[in-house]
Amino acid sequence: MTRLWNEPADFANEMVDGFIRANTKWVRKTSGGVARSTRSESPEVAVVIGGGSGHYPAFAGLVGPGLAHGAAMGNLFASPSARQVESVIQATHQGRGVLLSYGNYAGDVMHFSTAQNAARAAGIECRSVVVTDDIFSAPPTHKEKRRGIAGDLTVFKVAGAAAAAGHDLDNVERVALLANERTRTMGVAFSGCTLPGASEPLFSVPEGRMAIGLGIHGEPGLEETDVPTANELSELFVERLLAEAEIPDGVTPQGARVVPVLNGLGSVKNEELFVLFSRIAELLETAGITIVDPQVGEFCTSFDMAGVSLTLFWLNDELEELWNAPANTPAFRTGSAHSGSLIAAEDENAAVADDAIAEASVASQTAAARITTMLSAMSNLVAENADELGRLDSVAGDGDHGIGMQRGVNAAAAAAAKAAERGAGAQTLLNRAADEWSDRAGGTSGALWGVILKSIGEHLGDTAEITAGSVSAGVSAASDAVMAYGGAAVGDKTLVDALVPFATSLHERVAAGDSLAAAWAEAARLATHATERTSDMMPGLGRARSHGEKSLGTPDPGAVSLSLIVTMLGAQLADA
Amino acid sequence: MTRLWNEPADFANEMVDGFIRANTKWVRKTSGGVARSTRSESPEVAVVIGGGSGHYPAFAGLVGPGLAHGAAMGNLFASPSARQVESVIQATHQGRGVLLSYGNYAGDVMHFSTAQNAARAAGIECRSVVVTDDIFSAPPTHKEKRRGIAGDLTVFKVAGAAAAAGHDLDNVERVALLANERTRTMGVAFSGCTLPGASEPLFSVPEGRMAIGLGIHGEPGLEETDVPTANELSELFVERLLAEAEIPDGVTPQGARVVPVLNGLGSVKNEELFVLFSRIAELLETAGITIVDPQVGEFCTSFDMAGVSLTLFWLNDELEELWNAPANTPAFRTGSAHSGSLIAAEDENAAVADDAIAEASVASQTAAARITTMLSAMSNLVAENADELGRLDSVAGDGDHGIGMQRGVNAAAAAAAKAAERGAGAQTLLNRAADEWSDRAGGTSGALWGVILKSIGEHLGDTAEITAGSVSAGVSAASDAVMAYGGAAVGDKTLVDALVPFATSLHERVAAGDSLAAAWAEAARLATHATERTSDMMPGLGRARSHGEKSLGTPDPGAVSLSLIVTMLGAQLADA
Repeated sequence: MTRLWNEPADFANEMVDGFIRANTKWVRKTSGGVARSTRSESPEVAVVIGGGSGHYPAFAGLVGPGLAHGAAMGNLFASPSARQVESVIQATHQGRGVLLSYGNYAGDVMHFSTAQNAARAAGIECRSVVVTDDIFSAPPTHKEKRRGIAGDLTVFKVAGAAAAAGHDLDNVERVALLANERTRTMGVAFSGCTLPGASEPLFSVPEGRMAIGLGIHGEPGLEETDVPTANELSELFVERLLAEAEIPDGVTPQGARVVPVLNGLGSVKNEELFVLFSRIAELLETAGITIVDPQVGEFCTSFDMAGVSLTLFWLNDELEELWNAPANTPAFRTGSAHSGSLIAAEDENAAVADDAIAEASVASQTAAARITTMLSAMSNLVAENADELGRLDSVAGDGDHGIGMQRGVNAAAAAAAKAAERGAGAQTLLNRAADEWSDRAGGTSGALWGVILKSIGEHLGDTAEITAGSVSAGVSAASDAVMAYGGAAVGDKTLVDALVPFATSLHERVAAGDSLAAAWAEAARLATHATERTSDMMPGLGRARSHGEKSLGTPDPGAVSLSLIVTMLGAQLADA
Repeated sequence: MTRLWNEPADFANEMVDGFIRANTKWVRKTSGGVARSTRSESPEVAVVIGGGSGHYPAFAGLVGPGLAHGAAMGNLFASPSARQVESVIQATHQGRGVLLSYGNYAGDVMHFSTAQNAARAAGIECRSVVVTDDIFSAPPTHKEKRRGIAGDLTVFKVAGAAAAAGHDLDNVERVALLANERTRTMGVAFSGCTLPGASEPLFSVPEGRMAIGLGIHGEPGLEETDVPTANELSELFVERLLAEAEIPDGVTPQGARVVPVLNGLGSVKNEELFVLFSRIAELLETAGITIVDPQVGEFCTSFDMAGVSLTLFWLNDELEELWNAPANTPAFRTGSAHSGSLIAAEDENAAVADDAIAEASVASQTAAARITTMLSAMSNLVAENADELGRLDSVAGDGDHGIGMQRGVNAAAAAAAKAAERGAGAQTLLNRAADEWSDRAGGTSGALWGVILKSIGEHLGDTAEITAGSVSAGVSAASDAVMAYGGAAVGDKTLVDALVPFATSLHERVAAGDSLAAAWAEAARLATHATERTSDMMPGLGRARSHGEKSLGTPDPGAVSLSLIVTMLGAQLADA
């Protein structure tokens, strides 16, 4: 939903004002919209685009050298008036004629046509290219009835590049028509959008469903399905856009060169678009298509509508040259001052992974096998408790402690198993497991568990017999290292609150002559007790302050996972 | 919420794969993240940035000439591991040292510090600049504890530009520290975000409320208020960021030069950002600050979190030169190949508005006054019915018919009043009203009402007596013109369905000798009747097809507003 406005009626005007203030490098205000704030030395055919507002960067974000000369900016989702278009024509024409280009909507067609007639009557040569890229808005037999959506970009870019290259109006019109003929788009939507001040969404899609072909103003689609996986959506896009009826005349997909434009409508974010694009690129390549200069981002939006479209722009040599020509606008910049002086880079310093396994004693290999079993049990334990750990973390953190622990311990267990197979001793195995845990879990807890495993490994070595003394010394070293590394002390409501009493007790009991199993069980009991006490603590300095009160009554998730793990391992030691 | 993924556990890897496939011009895959795919002729200090994923374009979107040399890419909202950072250092260093820069989060600090130690141990000179721009995460007395958010951009950009200019590691570190010291950000949030596959949002903000200072992973804010107006939010941002304690040492706001970065977190869209920026720019200028190269868009996001932040980057000469240096990355491009050959443009062809009022007879002036009263009554009528018209339109259109009609008729009434004051006759007055209606309403209905008013005006003239015959001829001409212009016929479920019977009946009755009032009343009755019948019609070709069934049972909103208007005017004529 749109949240920020003053008077809804003023929204469009204030938006235009802010857009211009933010982009004086490229645009100046003109009656009815914006025009470039610069012009090239030789006069050009003027390319005037436009449409309703609410689709940024369409249309005003595409005004600048190498692209459009001006944009008529209508009210929200409403076409600009004929007078607005006329004013932008007047402000931009340079005596070489004007190309109007816009999406195929009834209101836009009316107003732009009226403006074209008026401009012609005033002696300005004027042509129009109406964009019709949306394959779902009419069948292939009625391509001229199709709406214009994100494919606007390719038509405008080609027209702007031709104008910048000094082409005459005939040629600018010809290449724009050719670009439109070779541009096809398919869109889907998951939710609608609410205009400033409106109490209801302009249109909506049921939760968990996807509308296929829904237009950028909520015009209805063709079908509705459940939201598919990312790969399924990529496959749907490519399948429909490579259907025989959608391949432009004279084009064979095998060997063709295509610019894909993967467009987010507002709330589908870049990360999701990249996941989609990973599969789309694969599918296009499998079809024998060469991908040229792919575009992934927002090119034609509907406020914060959750939707996505894929455009395929089928190049020929002429169109490719025009597409690649430099352009520099508020929202579309291509062709760099840098390109001359750069050379392709390779991974010259690529580190060669040190994969050798240090020699180990049979005793240490036996201990390593036992540690592998323990890590595997830890992995099961964390999986069972992941939801609860996430819940605890969501009170005072970002809720991903369970997920992070799972990723880490699973990776550590797998690495340990691999190292054990290759005959690693305890230290080498714990080192590998520590690296993987830290690497895959990321975040703070991953780093700390990496430190714990590494510290213990250093005290076990690859050749020595494992004794209660070496284990307790390793745990003490781990406790010290975690405090030094993480900067937390006892009482800060972190895993240190469980680790320190555990390590201290283990050390004391072992020194007093207890067996490892007995000492461990008692230490685990104390760790659990200390973990419960973290419920009464306020988070330490390292944590965001105002979560303090909120997290009172909840134990620290890092301490909880540590005490769960040492308790379970205690039971294993007792059984052995 | 995040909607598109395959296996949640694979999301980050697939995202990285798609990002690289979409941006091979700039980046190549390296163990742990990405590195530039090109390098400059002379070796540079390598700038390595990074952090968790989910914040695109932070961090990988900022890798390219003039900015970062590589980015370590952690899992979703989790810091990259030390090993990942180390690998990116290895892949990017060019023998002149490495600057690590990242936001101040515990996990990132741990892993980057470990990587720095490892790199130093391997003989690579390495320094770190931790970004701390978020003014709400710690008081000014503990600036070093603050989190890093969208202000990352200014620190990375300055470091990258210094590296590109050939500076040594000391100097790159110095300017990055200076940039961090002169960068302050304040953020607010309206909603949280849901990670791929999660059943619950990672964090949330109550509907209609705004969290001040909420972090980019949902770390708690300082206060919560109702969602303010756009202007109030702009004022809050500027007030807090211009508080004395937040002005960097040695800076006086009056006369200072500042880069503002207005950042959308995901679902606050460009249009809203521009509305905010309109007021922010005004406020900064009022404070005597010169705005340099403003940035409005997405620079550090949290998936589709609805939030916005404002960063002020306080320049000095050195920082300004570095900020303005060219950069060319997937998501940040500045400095154009074009800039040499462009000249400032002015509105050379600016049309001089033809504001002269044609001479009019007293009779026509009297009629014009009466038409003005009628337009004003129409304006009231439409206001009373705007909600209902919007509701009808939402069944088969985009729901803005009521809003569009209101904008149009209000503007027309105001223009008529102005023209009447200046002595305009009926035609001139109706022309002005028509232009304003079409201009302000936009869309299809604006264009058609413009045509109606203009057509009637042509038949009334500025000097002739107004007769029943001239009115009915004008209405008939309007009916013909609307059909020609809009391309709709009777039965297409448009305003034509009411206008044609109205015009036909008016013409017949007047020709048969009825008074204008009597003929009009009867014609209005028929128009209303015809409007009711549109409930049984399917929309014509010009409308989106599958709305057909949906809108059965609902009359056409354009026909409804027309019949309401002619009925009301009929009552006025009868009273006169």
